[in-house]
Amino acid sequence: MINFEKQGVEQFFQTLTVSNFTVSPDEKQLVFSTNLNGYSNLWAMNLPNQFPYPLTFNNQNAAFLSYAKTGEFIIAGFDQDGDENTQIYAVSPKGGKFYPLRTHEGERHFFSFLSEDGKRLYYPSTFGNPTYFNNYVYNLETGEEKLLLKGEEAPTFIEAVSPNEDSFVSIKQFGNTHSLAYAHVGEEKLLLTPETTEQHTVGEIVYTSETDLYFLTDYDRDLTYLAKFNLSTKEFSVVLQLDQEAFSSLTYSKKNNSLYLVGSYGVEDRLYEYSIEKGQLNSINAPTSVIDKLVVMKSGNLYAQGRNATTPGNLFVSKDNGTIWEELTHYRVPGVNDDDLVEPEVLTYPSFDGMEIEALFFKAKAENSNGHVILWPHGGPQALERKTFRSMFQSLIYSGYSIFAPNFRGSTNYGLKFSKLVEGDWGHGPRLDNIQGLEWLIENGYADREKILLLGGSYGGYMALLLHGRHADYFKAVVDIFGPSDLFSFIESVPEFWKPYMEQWVGDPIKDKERLTKDSPITYLDGMTKPMLVIQGANDPRVVQKESDQIVAALKEKGREVEYIVLEDEGHGFSKKQNEILVYGKIIEFFNENIKEGRPVV
Amino acid sequence: MINFEKQGVEQFFQTLTVSNFTVSPDEKQLVFSTNLNGYSNLWAMNLPNQFPYPLTFNNQNAAFLSYAKTGEFIIAGFDQDGDENTQIYAVSPKGGKFYPLRTHEGERHFFSFLSEDGKRLYYPSTFGNPTYFNNYVYNLETGEEKLLLKGEEAPTFIEAVSPNEDSFVSIKQFGNTHSLAYAHVGEEKLLLTPETTEQHTVGEIVYTSETDLYFLTDYDRDLTYLAKFNLSTKEFSVVLQLDQEAFSSLTYSKKNNSLYLVGSYGVEDRLYEYSIEKGQLNSINAPTSVIDKLVVMKSGNLYAQGRNATTPGNLFVSKDNGTIWEELTHYRVPGVNDDDLVEPEVLTYPSFDGMEIEALFFKAKAENSNGHVILWPHGGPQALERKTFRSMFQSLIYSGYSIFAPNFRGSTNYGLKFSKLVEGDWGHGPRLDNIQGLEWLIENGYADREKILLLGGSYGGYMALLLHGRHADYFKAVVDIFGPSDLFSFIESVPEFWKPYMEQWVGDPIKDKERLTKDSPITYLDGMTKPMLVIQGANDPRVVQKESDQIVAALKEKGREVEYIVLEDEGHGFSKKQNEILVYGKIIEFFNENIKEGRPVV
Repeated sequence: MINFEKQGVEQFFQTLTVSNFTVSPDEKQLVFSTNLNGYSNLWAMNLPNQFPYPLTFNNQNAAFLSYAKTGEFIIAGFDQDGDENTQIYAVSPKGGKFYPLRTHEGERHFFSFLSEDGKRLYYPSTFGNPTYFNNYVYNLETGEEKLLLKGEEAPTFIEAVSPNEDSFVSIKQFGNTHSLAYAHVGEEKLLLTPETTEQHTVGEIVYTSETDLYFLTDYDRDLTYLAKFNLSTKEFSVVLQLDQEAFSSLTYSKKNNSLYLVGSYGVEDRLYEYSIEKGQLNSINAPTSVIDKLVVMKSGNLYAQGRNATTPGNLFVSKDNGTIWEELTHYRVPGVNDDDLVEPEVLTYPSFDGMEIEALFFKAKAENSNGHVILWPHGGPQALERKTFRSMFQSLIYSGYSIFAPNFRGSTNYGLKFSKLVEGDWGHGPRLDNIQGLEWLIENGYADREKILLLGGSYGGYMALLLHGRHADYFKAVVDIFGPSDLFSFIESVPEFWKPYMEQWVGDPIKDKERLTKDSPITYLDGMTKPMLVIQGANDPRVVQKESDQIVAALKEKGREVEYIVLEDEGHGFSKKQNEILVYGKIIEFFNENIKEGRPVV
Repeated sequence: MINFEKQGVEQFFQTLTVSNFTVSPDEKQLVFSTNLNGYSNLWAMNLPNQFPYPLTFNNQNAAFLSYAKTGEFIIAGFDQDGDENTQIYAVSPKGGKFYPLRTHEGERHFFSFLSEDGKRLYYPSTFGNPTYFNNYVYNLETGEEKLLLKGEEAPTFIEAVSPNEDSFVSIKQFGNTHSLAYAHVGEEKLLLTPETTEQHTVGEIVYTSETDLYFLTDYDRDLTYLAKFNLSTKEFSVVLQLDQEAFSSLTYSKKNNSLYLVGSYGVEDRLYEYSIEKGQLNSINAPTSVIDKLVVMKSGNLYAQGRNATTPGNLFVSKDNGTIWEELTHYRVPGVNDDDLVEPEVLTYPSFDGMEIEALFFKAKAENSNGHVILWPHGGPQALERKTFRSMFQSLIYSGYSIFAPNFRGSTNYGLKFSKLVEGDWGHGPRLDNIQGLEWLIENGYADREKILLLGGSYGGYMALLLHGRHADYFKAVVDIFGPSDLFSFIESVPEFWKPYMEQWVGDPIKDKERLTKDSPITYLDGMTKPMLVIQGANDPRVVQKESDQIVAALKEKGREVEYIVLEDEGHGFSKKQNEILVYGKIIEFFNENIKEGRPVV
């Protein structure tokens, strides 16, 4: 009877999400980080009651979150408005004022492990060793602290501690595609993967006993598989590898003596249980297309945080090993019909050199479409665009834009080799993968050559700037969100502990001067002729504000049309609802303005 | 192991609450008004899942909320930042942009009834009749509107409509203690209570059939009881009266052919079911000490909104007729132990003329106490202080203050006669009840004569001003929250539809000039020698900003110490979390400052 109007696009900006969670040992309380009140805070529910109540009011996101096995407190890491200088706190299960455990202004702390009795906190920190980290054990009872492991050669962090704390495993992170793990047993230090000069990665280390270590690695293979190391025999062994699918996370269930694995190949996740005794892998239902966190409780109950392309982060529980997942939260795009949300199509296309590229294409509904396609080069670059919800995407799609998100070379989840292709080549291969993707879209009727826009953040912002500088003819307008504009200044300004990676990852300012010049967006100011919108968080420690300041200033000096928004209380992302509303609204307004017929072309 | 610090008082300001609710006919969705994200908005839960999701983002409180029996939409009334110009909207069960049903800028709309088929909306409005109201029927399908009843003689509103819409009942509200109800059957108009010159009230009208009307009245009695009127026989009858207990709300259950009654005598509620067939009253469990709303569904399930002295508004469901109540929400004072919250003691004391006054005394815990007692004359004045949660109270108590809240003459729930005692006597009897209460506290060791403070809002703000002006010696400092300062200007500035009440309630500016002068706080400027804090909402239509402006200006002119806070986006109350935090923090700071030893006494 009442014709409720079509929802405005601003509904999309109001979408809430879960960003982390932990469960009390008795499963009576679930604690999670969410923006329920417009800011990131910790909230809790007293299961089975799902109604949330607030624990913190500091309006900061929890970088990590872990319930003490004693049930007495929760370990949480908070930074300040995105500065990534994470400090370690203990939060009472009741919430309220929380207790600083390890804090040093301007330093970044990570979380490794809290002993069963809640007394010993293992954590890496930039404190005293900004490039390679120091790994400390802090005794919560006595206040004593011990330097357990000083990082050397590469950023080094303790990844796992044995049940009796007799040994631990550290990881040396040489880069995104190169890491080594070492078991420390007394004075002995055992490399978990066989000696080799071939770069590979090791991670997700799990102790199933004092001697047995399971982990994920791509040592000697292209896709990450399950491996084992025995501390007694000092033997490495391959346990399980899937065809065409990499594993991305590993969780141990003592109850079932099994390992839960998230399998990832490309844009979706799958979930498996591997029985250690039977050596058997069973596929189990996943609650969402992408799983962000899986926790297995003593009871065997599974708790998961996950997202779909059309639903934001939610929490789920399964009490029957994944057959049925009950949704504990209930976040959706408020007021919008499921029909108005778009699932992406998965495309593959051959790039300039024949390499196959997978991409997502979100096609605007016919009744909304304005015929324009936005190219979205994802960030990372060693990451990928998956079937996960973005308010920004769905709001643009609802506004009539289709979105093309290619997983260009360098993207993860397609094997180690593919991922390495962006290293030392930020601006050539990946750039042409993007351009070739557009050409393929045009050829295949997905896009109109005259109706293309460009939007990217972080590495994607860099790529947006570079594509604008070198291929402006393709684009009507360009949005850059905290993208590096000059690889030379970028290399200098990243966090200290990133610096050891920079040569392999991006390049050396002296040896690779020519290439870095060629691959720096700022080299192509003359080419940047289209209207631009640049967005930057003032506290961003990864791509510092100067990266945006300098390109905006240079373009303005040339009289180009460029709009610039600096968010004073954000870092490398938007965590506050009012900022999301501002930024997403602005992007849509900017694109809408620039696709108008008859708009003078600069 | 970790000694979490004692919570700061600011935790109390973060307490959230439910302020209204409605349930979908199939009981699959519960819609409620709450300040979960810091503003009043509508949220919903898909029962049995209790996780809330937002429906509206207009940041306004719902003055009324009613689910259409068809399940298609929800009727909601929103004003703008407390201006009380409520407009009528239809909200989709999905939420999002909502649909204006009846809106007129600057006018106030109420809600009477929505027909079973959701097509005819009965509502009173100031539109066209600002003093007495017009009652309209609006057809949602055709858009046609009919003036059903024009108010005359007193503000008049349709209170109930018969199941087949063959008849309806209107109420003429002559004042808080004087109303008459009329059944309109065709051209006939039947008074529900017998003709009398004695003032009484009639309300909570319920049709149990086309002919049987049940309602609450205090016709010919002091306490409100259950009565019946039969439209065929035109007979009034007393159905049920309790000793020492008044009824305050009435809900019909078709399933059980019974009436649910909230019984109220003084500071607590009780819950009853009255079987119409058996003529039998059964006491049933109440989920909270005070019940704000009770809804009985077709299924017989009971939904309640209620508060205790130590818990804010929450929602409950009982599926077994009140034996077990399940809490659907979970609002508490975040991070604070139950032990740190204070239940009031119920005191009675004889006033200056021997009249017995009931009062609440919230005694600060010994470990927190600063020995000071705050006198809180409640608002209304025809209302009372009950065992209901106030963040402001509990935060003051936690800060060390005890609170004394006397239900002085004029308070409701103690019978009609008692309630009438404030009419035409705003400033004498009730004032002395307050003073006598203080003397009683001092005599009985509850308070120290040198350690008393004063705080009140609305009528309580008026009383705070008056007590300050006439009895300043008692008080170290005074807080007035939107209290009338001058009865002459107050009478002139109230909403139009209040004006017919003003002569009986307050007085006539000409006939009662002497008394109104004597009872106006502004008459006693010279006496107001103690530090003051005045708080006012700019949009308050009941006690307009001028009431606070003028007393602040007058005091400042005399060089008195007075601090003034005007909240631009609030009316007669504080609906926004940031305003609550500001105001409550300010009050505590103000009192703390003024109880310091050695502070020079003005």
